[in-house]
Amino acid sequence: MTHDSPEFNERLSRHVAEVEAAIRRLTPAPETRPAVLHEAMRYSLEAGGKRLRPVLCIAAHALFPSVLSPLPAAVALECLHTYSLIHDDLPCMDNADLRRGKPTCHKKFGETTALLAGDALLTHALWLLADAYKAAPAVAVGLVRDLGDAAGSRKLIGGQVEDTIGTAGANTPERLDYIHHNKTAALITAAITMGVRLTSAPSAAVAKAREIGMAAGLAFQVVDDILDVTGDAATLGKPAHADAGNGKLTYPSLHGLGASRGKACELTDTAVRLCGELVNEFGGTTDGFLVALLRNMENRIN
Amino acid sequence: MTHDSPEFNERLSRHVAEVEAAIRRLTPAPETRPAVLHEAMRYSLEAGGKRLRPVLCIAAHALFPSVLSPLPAAVALECLHTYSLIHDDLPCMDNADLRRGKPTCHKKFGETTALLAGDALLTHALWLLADAYKAAPAVAVGLVRDLGDAAGSRKLIGGQVEDTIGTAGANTPERLDYIHHNKTAALITAAITMGVRLTSAPSAAVAKAREIGMAAGLAFQVVDDILDVTGDAATLGKPAHADAGNGKLTYPSLHGLGASRGKACELTDTAVRLCGELVNEFGGTTDGFLVALLRNMENRIN
Repeated sequence: MTHDSPEFNERLSRHVAEVEAAIRRLTPAPETRPAVLHEAMRYSLEAGGKRLRPVLCIAAHALFPSVLSPLPAAVALECLHTYSLIHDDLPCMDNADLRRGKPTCHKKFGETTALLAGDALLTHALWLLADAYKAAPAVAVGLVRDLGDAAGSRKLIGGQVEDTIGTAGANTPERLDYIHHNKTAALITAAITMGVRLTSAPSAAVAKAREIGMAAGLAFQVVDDILDVTGDAATLGKPAHADAGNGKLTYPSLHGLGASRGKACELTDTAVRLCGELVNEFGGTTDGFLVALLRNMENRIN
Repeated sequence: MTHDSPEFNERLSRHVAEVEAAIRRLTPAPETRPAVLHEAMRYSLEAGGKRLRPVLCIAAHALFPSVLSPLPAAVALECLHTYSLIHDDLPCMDNADLRRGKPTCHKKFGETTALLAGDALLTHALWLLADAYKAAPAVAVGLVRDLGDAAGSRKLIGGQVEDTIGTAGANTPERLDYIHHNKTAALITAAITMGVRLTSAPSAAVAKAREIGMAAGLAFQVVDDILDVTGDAATLGKPAHADAGNGKLTYPSLHGLGASRGKACELTDTAVRLCGELVNEFGGTTDGFLVALLRNMENRIN
C-alpha cells in the first residue's frame, strides 16, 4: 500500500469517519448544560482537522491482536490536541483569527468560553481514558500516564512556553530541538504508544512504539516548518509565513530549506524502519497502512 | 474533638504541613525547564491556601484502614483547585489582581504563563493520580474518574460558565443551585470520595462519602457567599463585596443573610449526620477530626 494509492485513501477516509462518529458518541452533546460551553467544544472538535493523531493510534493498534477498541483513546487524543489549539490561538498566545479556514474558538464564542472549552477538553481527554477502559484498569492507567505525561509541563506545555515566550531567546539548534520534541513530537509519540498499549503486545513493543512516535513526530514538525515557508494560506487553512513573520525559531530558519527536506526524509525513514522492527520482533502483522500513513505525513501539503 | 480545640488545631496544622511537603515532593521543581512555567506553578501552589480539599481527603481516608497514602490524591486535589483559581482570575474571567493577599498568577508572571501554568496543573493533577497509584490500578482508575468527572464540563467548568457568563441570566434558585453544586461542591465531593476510595471500605461507603461531600460542599459555598457580604478584605485576602459589585447570583442575594446562615447550619448538620452513618454502617473508626473540620468550615471567617 503506497501513500497515494486509492487503497490508502479509502482506508484513511474510513478511519477518519470512525473517529468522527466516535467523537460525537464519546463527548457531551452540544445541547448539554451549559450549552454555550458544549457548543464551543464541539465547534472546535468538528472544525475539520486531519485526525492525524487518532488515526496514528488506530494504525498502530492494528499491528497486534487486541480485545480493546482504540476509538476512545483516539477521541481522547483529538480532545487533547483540540484543547491545545484553542489555547494556542488565544489573544495572549498566538492571537490567531483563523484555524483550518474557520474563525478560531475565541473569535466565534468569546475568550471566556474558549478558555473554558479548552480546559474542558483537556479534562475530558484524561477522564475518558479512565472511564472507557475501566474494565482493563492496568491498561487505563498506562494510557492516562502516556497522555498526561505527553501533555504535561515538561513536554507539550513546556514546548509551547519555549515556542511562544522564548521568541526573543537564543535561536540555537538545542532550543529548536527542545521545541520540536515537546510541542509536537510528544503527542504524536503518545498516539502511537497508546495504540500499541491497547493490544496484547509486550511492554518492550510499547517502548519500540515510543521510538517510532518520536521519529514520526519530529518529521511532522519539520514538514510543518517547511510548509510555513513554501505553502499558501488557501491550502494551509491558516496564514502562510506566520512563523517567519513572528520571528519564530524553525528548522528552515536555522538550517535552510534543503537541509529541512533532507531531515524530514531521514526521520521518516527511521520511523518506517522501526515499524518493520516492531512488527518482526514482536510477531505483529501489517498490510502497510501505518507505513503509508508515515509517508503521507512526509509528503503532505497542508 | 471540637472545631476550636487545641487538639483540632494541632491536627489541622500537621496535615497542612504534610500536604505542603507532599506538594514540593510531587510537583516538578521550580527550576525544571522551562523555569518560568514551573516557577509560576509553584508560586500559585504555595500562595497560602487553606489546603481544605487535601485535608478533607486525608480526614476521610483516616476513617478506614488503608495501605495507600492519601498524599498523592491530596496533592492532585490541590493542583486541580489551584488551576481553577489561576484561570478564574484571568482578565477574560474575573480579572482579579489579588488572591489570598498576593498578586494573582497573571499579575506576577503575565497572562501567557498563567494560562499555561493552569493547564499544566490540571494535567499534572490527573496524571499524578495514575502515576502514584499505578500499583493499585483499579483504585487509580476510580480516582481519575472521580476527579475528572468533578472537574469536567458538566460540573466544575459548567458551574464556572454559569457563574461567569450567566451574570445577566435568570437569577433563580434553580440556577443558584446549579452553580453551587458544580462550581464548588463537586470538587469538595471528590475530595471526600477519593479519601474513602483509597481505603478498604466497600463501594457503598464510597457512595455515602459522595453524599457527605455534596452537603459539605454546598455548605462551604453558602458560607463563602455570606463572607463576601459580611467579611472585610484584610481577613478574606481578596476584595469583599466582590460578588455584589459584579451582580453575581449568591445565596444571600436571593434568600437574605438570615436564611443563608440557617442553610449553612442545616447543610453542615446533614454532613455531620452522614459522617456518623458512614462510620457506623461500614465499621470505620474516628477520633472526630472530620466532623470537627466540617464544623470549622461552617464557622470560618475567611
